[in-house]
Amino acid sequence: MEYYSEKINKLIAELGMLPGIGTKSAQRLAFHILDMSDEQVERFTEAIKDAKKNVRHCRNCQCLTDRELCPICSNPSRNHKMIMVVESTRDLAAYEKIGKFNGVYHVLNGVISPMLGIGPADINLKELMQRLQQEDVEELVIATNSSVEGEATAMYISKLVKPAGIKVSRIASGIPVGGDLEYIDEVTLLRALDGRVEL
Amino acid sequence: MEYYSEKINKLIAELGMLPGIGTKSAQRLAFHILDMSDEQVERFTEAIKDAKKNVRHCRNCQCLTDRELCPICSNPSRNHKMIMVVESTRDLAAYEKIGKFNGVYHVLNGVISPMLGIGPADINLKELMQRLQQEDVEELVIATNSSVEGEATAMYISKLVKPAGIKVSRIASGIPVGGDLEYIDEVTLLRALDGRVEL
Repeated sequence: MEYYSEKINKLIAELGMLPGIGTKSAQRLAFHILDMSDEQVERFTEAIKDAKKNVRHCRNCQCLTDRELCPICSNPSRNHKMIMVVESTRDLAAYEKIGKFNGVYHVLNGVISPMLGIGPADINLKELMQRLQQEDVEELVIATNSSVEGEATAMYISKLVKPAGIKVSRIASGIPVGGDLEYIDEVTLLRALDGRVEL
Repeated sequence: MEYYSEKINKLIAELGMLPGIGTKSAQRLAFHILDMSDEQVERFTEAIKDAKKNVRHCRNCQCLTDRELCPICSNPSRNHKMIMVVESTRDLAAYEKIGKFNGVYHVLNGVISPMLGIGPADINLKELMQRLQQEDVEELVIATNSSVEGEATAMYISKLVKPAGIKVSRIASGIPVGGDLEYIDEVTLLRALDGRVEL
């Protein structure tokens, strides 16, 4: 792309590496950024750096947060005897958005996927087992996506946890197979929570 | 959005202000950025800052470049007697991409739009007139978009320049190659008919 100068090309290339941003979109974003005021650009890059620098995993539930213990884990009015296991912080947010689940979460940060070489040791399962030993947990609601990997991970966790006498449930498959939790409407999410079945 | 922590929300908000990026996309981009390595984030923010700091308007054609005189204006093998007038640097790039135009450009950086309060003094017309006086220009190809504002701007420039004895032309408007006649609007069909060329 010699028709743009080097620094513009570099910016377009960096933007084009973001997910869902093709060359055309990257160009549009690049020229939008060049059109922004110095203050806006400063605020934009600072927001990126600041988030990157300060966002870490909650030491209890492993969700992404800027505190050591996330607001959900440190909230005494939540039911800490009920843990919902999700794949990512975005999936956590999908359930938090509807505001009907009063328990706490555990973020796996992935799913078991032999195809991608992701084993049980690569996701936050050790941390989950630790919590189950240390805390007085009554029910584990497994809310991994209803993909093959999500289902397999649910089965794996169930087999691991059940011997300890903890009730394990799985959100109902009101969720279309292959669907991605964070894009599903609230009613379906709620149905799935209400219709959870014991494994 | 209290389900994400403050710094994540701030990042999502900043990303959501970019054109064509809705809340969902902003969330996806934010978590992608948080997932990038420190070096990648550093390179990304540096590319933004570096482009913003160093990209300026070419002193001759007003396109966005990181040099004082852009590569096209400083190329002696281009035909400097033929100037194509475009609205933006991206429009310039659209013609450069096909590599068949050997003249030079002049970027207006906008169009005359009374609706938006943009008058002839707000776009790079003064700079164009200066070039026409100082340089030995034979033809001006007006390649503004074929919107109402683009057409009006083309007419305005034409009336301004013609008395000086410079040939002024306008890129043809008609049916795009591959376009389906039955889906094309009436104005375009009429233009295509009026602008018919003998075979």
